Amino acid sequence: MSERVTILTGGVGGAKLVLGLCHAIPAENVTAIVNTADDFNHLGLAVSPDIDTLLYTLSGKANAAQGWGREGESWSFMEALRSLGAEDWFQLGDGDLALHVLRSKRLQQGEHLSSIIADFASAWNISARILPMSDDRVGTMVGTDEGLLDFQHYFVRRRCEPVVRTISFEGANTAKPAKGVIEAITGSDCKAILIAPSNPFLSIDPILAVRGIREALVETRTPVIAVSPIVAGKAVKGPTANIMMELGLEVSAVAVANHYAGMIDAILVDERDAPAPLHIASAQADTLMTTLEDRIRVARAALELADSIRR
Amino acid sequence: MSERVTILTGGVGGAKLVLGLCHAIPAENVTAIVNTADDFNHLGLAVSPDIDTLLYTLSGKANAAQGWGREGESWSFMEALRSLGAEDWFQLGDGDLALHVLRSKRLQQGEHLSSIIADFASAWNISARILPMSDDRVGTMVGTDEGLLDFQHYFVRRRCEPVVRTISFEGANTAKPAKGVIEAITGSDCKAILIAPSNPFLSIDPILAVRGIREALVETRTPVIAVSPIVAGKAVKGPTANIMMELGLEVSAVAVANHYAGMIDAILVDERDAPAPLHIASAQADTLMTTLEDRIRVARAALELADSIRR
Repeated sequence: MSERVTILTGGVGGAKLVLGLCHAIPAENVTAIVNTADDFNHLGLAVSPDIDTLLYTLSGKANAAQGWGREGESWSFMEALRSLGAEDWFQLGDGDLALHVLRSKRLQQGEHLSSIIADFASAWNISARILPMSDDRVGTMVGTDEGLLDFQHYFVRRRCEPVVRTISFEGANTAKPAKGVIEAITGSDCKAILIAPSNPFLSIDPILAVRGIREALVETRTPVIAVSPIVAGKAVKGPTANIMMELGLEVSAVAVANHYAGMIDAILVDERDAPAPLHIASAQADTLMTTLEDRIRVARAALELADSIRR
Repeated sequence: MSERVTILTGGVGGAKLVLGLCHAIPAENVTAIVNTADDFNHLGLAVSPDIDTLLYTLSGKANAAQGWGREGESWSFMEALRSLGAEDWFQLGDGDLALHVLRSKRLQQGEHLSSIIADFASAWNISARILPMSDDRVGTMVGTDEGLLDFQHYFVRRRCEPVVRTISFEGANTAKPAKGVIEAITGSDCKAILIAPSNPFLSIDPILAVRGIREALVETRTPVIAVSPIVAGKAVKGPTANIMMELGLEVSAVAVANHYAGMIDAILVDERDAPAPLHIASAQADTLMTTLEDRIRVARAALELADSIRR
């Protein structure tokens, strides 16, 4: 029986580690459980930012320099949209639209997001299994000094500028994990569960908020390893560090470990961060993931940490 | 009071005459009543081919060489669509998608097609009034030797190859003319009503099939002038001549005049077609519309024919 690895992930940063993992072990043994609480309906289209980032990254279509969207994207749609006076704060590339249009059509026909994504991945020869955390609608709501904003409003439209007070996940109480999610965590063929260095509050917490997922992680006998999103006391990308400060937390791997307390067995900490007293196992490594080699190295370090715990 | 001209039109050929008309008289005095029975839902998007051709033509965005779509269009969407294994028989350009996405979204929100199109036209500084024949759904169904096909299936997917036996307009019995349509025909400020040289069976008949429109044309005191789509015994473009033959009709301006009998007061016939015995007034002109000057010339010839009748 092949030994599988499961990884919980958000968008860009997480996708890098998933890609590394798909090179560190056979890609068909990887299951990614992906945040869908950033998903939103824009211009009548169902957009799934984190899932699509993973699809683009794993199929070699991602725009590495830009950090989101497709390499070699064209922008005729946005230009025409602007000429028609429509809202243009969210960038939809011409090629990118294919995913949104097909997804919207199939969702409208009553199909599950998970089966739509499985077809997309298969069409693009992606061997890893990509599972949305849920086929039910969950929406991240950010309580800020400017009021309650939905995620894309906070993240894209307001560029993370409002100060974050609270974060909640609308619909998470009633959402069911997508088919295969719980099995990917509790299955006896799973040798390690990784938590990608995605934003713990905006990308991982919504996954954990879906009924049964946190419980499965707490109960599973498989080692659960977090990769710290903090490098040298800062977040590599995105609003993680800012949000930690705004929520009154220290920007450190320790704070991340505490946030995941009771659920993770170990944390992989960047070598630039001073070893700190932790109540769980840890290892240090260079966790910056610029090249593919970096990504494979970090994946291997996380898997080794899992191995060391299992022994 | 400004004197208005109303024109019934389908797609490409008709749009050329509408453009000429907008130069022959002040564009703001032109009302185009446009076929929407070719409209269809594709990949969940509401596509209105004839209306969009008119929007592109009147705003100077049409691809003249291709005969449909936008000038300088890009095709990343179709490429991505194909990579995902989706159906690709109907070409949707990247810029073109903006109309379809916005239209779909606003229709879903319960807006009328006519008000959406008015906004599009206004955003693109189109002074002519573009009215869909109806805000209700009408669908052209083509009975062929391969069975009953919806219009786009016959026209695009099967490239007009199946032999046409019958043509019907689903929903036309209950569809109401869009707001302004009947007034544009019966209004006392209307000095001429033109029927564009669009396909009489596929582009004009569906307009006439909408409850009350044919009656309004029969009853109006304004001269109704058809511009024959036949030039030198052939159709300039599209399946008009083929369909006439398949329906057992002669391919001639006389047959077109007979088709519109009781409703038109005169017909503008191409100078290449031999004068034939007609029961209504007629005039001859070079009706080929290659350049903008051609289009203005044909519009003027049709308006002069209307003038001669009114006197």
